[in-house]
Amino acid sequence: MIYLDNAATTWPKPRGTAAAIAEVLSFRGANPGRGSYRMAELSSETVYKCRCRAAAFFGASAPENVIFTPSCTHSINYVLKGVLSAGDHVIISDMEHNAVTRPIKQLTRRGVQFSKARVHEGDPDATVVEFRRCMRANTKLIFCTHASNVFGIKLPVAAIGELAHRNGILFGMDCAQSAGTAEIDLRSLKADFLCMPAHKGLYGIMGLGLLIINCSQKLATVIEGGTGSLSGVNEQPDFLPDRFESGTLNVPAIAALDTGIGFIESVGRQRLEAHEMSLIWRAYDVFSSMPECTLYTARPETDTHVPLLSFNINGIPSDEAAQRLGSMEIAVRAGFHCAGDAHRKMGTQSGGTVRICPSVFTSEAEIDQLIATVKEMTRNL
Amino acid sequence: MIYLDNAATTWPKPRGTAAAIAEVLSFRGANPGRGSYRMAELSSETVYKCRCRAAAFFGASAPENVIFTPSCTHSINYVLKGVLSAGDHVIISDMEHNAVTRPIKQLTRRGVQFSKARVHEGDPDATVVEFRRCMRANTKLIFCTHASNVFGIKLPVAAIGELAHRNGILFGMDCAQSAGTAEIDLRSLKADFLCMPAHKGLYGIMGLGLLIINCSQKLATVIEGGTGSLSGVNEQPDFLPDRFESGTLNVPAIAALDTGIGFIESVGRQRLEAHEMSLIWRAYDVFSSMPECTLYTARPETDTHVPLLSFNINGIPSDEAAQRLGSMEIAVRAGFHCAGDAHRKMGTQSGGTVRICPSVFTSEAEIDQLIATVKEMTRNL
Repeated sequence: MIYLDNAATTWPKPRGTAAAIAEVLSFRGANPGRGSYRMAELSSETVYKCRCRAAAFFGASAPENVIFTPSCTHSINYVLKGVLSAGDHVIISDMEHNAVTRPIKQLTRRGVQFSKARVHEGDPDATVVEFRRCMRANTKLIFCTHASNVFGIKLPVAAIGELAHRNGILFGMDCAQSAGTAEIDLRSLKADFLCMPAHKGLYGIMGLGLLIINCSQKLATVIEGGTGSLSGVNEQPDFLPDRFESGTLNVPAIAALDTGIGFIESVGRQRLEAHEMSLIWRAYDVFSSMPECTLYTARPETDTHVPLLSFNINGIPSDEAAQRLGSMEIAVRAGFHCAGDAHRKMGTQSGGTVRICPSVFTSEAEIDQLIATVKEMTRNL
Repeated sequence: MIYLDNAATTWPKPRGTAAAIAEVLSFRGANPGRGSYRMAELSSETVYKCRCRAAAFFGASAPENVIFTPSCTHSINYVLKGVLSAGDHVIISDMEHNAVTRPIKQLTRRGVQFSKARVHEGDPDATVVEFRRCMRANTKLIFCTHASNVFGIKLPVAAIGELAHRNGILFGMDCAQSAGTAEIDLRSLKADFLCMPAHKGLYGIMGLGLLIINCSQKLATVIEGGTGSLSGVNEQPDFLPDRFESGTLNVPAIAALDTGIGFIESVGRQRLEAHEMSLIWRAYDVFSSMPECTLYTARPETDTHVPLLSFNINGIPSDEAAQRLGSMEIAVRAGFHCAGDAHRKMGTQSGGTVRICPSVFTSEAEIDQLIATVKEMTRNL
């Protein structure tokens, strides 16, 4: 199978992932941070090691600023609902995933107001102007995707972060499609909250997300429960990471994430990004020369896009195209990719798009096979 | 190592668990329910198989009533915050875990009122009277633990469910310590919501919980996001299970849970429960005859207790006792077990308790080793 749905979940995982999980199940299978015996200590050690590694990878100021959550979706909910309350205003972009738009929709019922800033592909200054234009006296948060999960378009997050901080506004990012692949360094980036999944570009497994907190803002909690700390008290702890880590942590997935980030470090993030971008160019350059194909963005570049591509074969609905590719063992995603706004913005709201996303394991030959298959499909139109 | 902290996480896992996870990572590693290619279909199949198995195991009316959540803590938060809003009253018991008391504390800030019904160990009628006494005109929900995670005491949930339904009140249960071990059958039990973790008595792994919904009540959501359904719409879907399953599901853990429940079915739940209870008797009967030990409950019986035991060695603080047992390779838990209320009720709020909990894999010889070690420790007092 040629797997090009890495924007949903990367596959395969690095060598060592299954072994890391099996090692946890066999020797570190106790609850971390709560027991006074060796296996619980080893479990805690696994968690702390990954926390430190993730903190270093993203330039977080301390390991405890790295919160383990069940998913990027949970991380985003924790930020939006932790920061915003009745009377607050938030700015999002016009190409957010449902993980942002659906919680925002819910928050409007609690009296939160929001504006959508228009993103101008290839014109970061114009995009920043749009965000500035949305600002109000009660704007508390700017929250946007780092890169569209449908079109790969990056937002100028460095400039948006500057804008936010100059105006006393918090800034949070949905890094679902960028974490692990694109540069994200909190030592230079003015972001207060990073939300990301483990199972995409960080090469971890499903069931884990990260929330990296890079400010002293105290957030309200969405989920409360046992934390192993202040155990006799009914009040949720107010310190990190415990405040946001109620319930037993997902230690097997944390071990897998540690393996994943270690793998990225050993390959080199920039090399990995360059490899994936070169594969996207390979597809883009052919598809853009085919009158039977529609592309939606400029030729992707590292500064302005993450390595993923949406396209359509004219005359074949995206879901049918994906089905036919699937039947030929090429795994792509079709439809709306849980991001209706992005499609409404780009005019693809009626039929969606076919999306491809390579990983570090994708080869040129696999992209060539995709291209050949798409060409074959257009022959019968 | 003699592992007696199964109330926190069961260990080891059944044979086949690591293989089931590795199989998912190798051959079913795509997002379920969203792709139109073979690996995504296999992933969906894994999820659906477990959903059906869990539904049958607990007597749920349909597979879609089984919701996969990140943890029991999340399941409980989803129920409490999904049902209760300002002006509502909820009744909990006086021996709840922080996974219940902390969300309740948070809800009081939103205008929710609560009462704590006193549990009378060994007198179910008296307990039900206490719950009835707490009822008010605005009582919307009774939510209580099925069995105390500290003292193993079961609540008379059948009678409490009857009481609730006779009075038009919803009834939810925290089955963290009972699911997989004690009988829970929604065909006879009048419970509207069951919350449980995968990684305890169901022999799954960390990072997964279940919420089983057994009524037509529409709950508000705590977390919203992409569900793969109604993908172009910013409104959270209102149908099950999608409404409560935003973000990518934890497929490896779902496969492990399927293995776990299958294992319980093959052993036989009642046989498993009887085995664990006989081990608890073994410890109870010796400790209760030792003047150096304090026990807190009547001799556990299947009708009234789940197989776990709290005790103290007089003169040795619980954490020190656990530490010493740990140094002798006996894994137990000490302290408050994230349940301050239960300790305040039982008078152990100053030092907590030592808690032991066997699993199906625990042997009589291991309990005998625990007993011998405790005796040895008391010799030097």
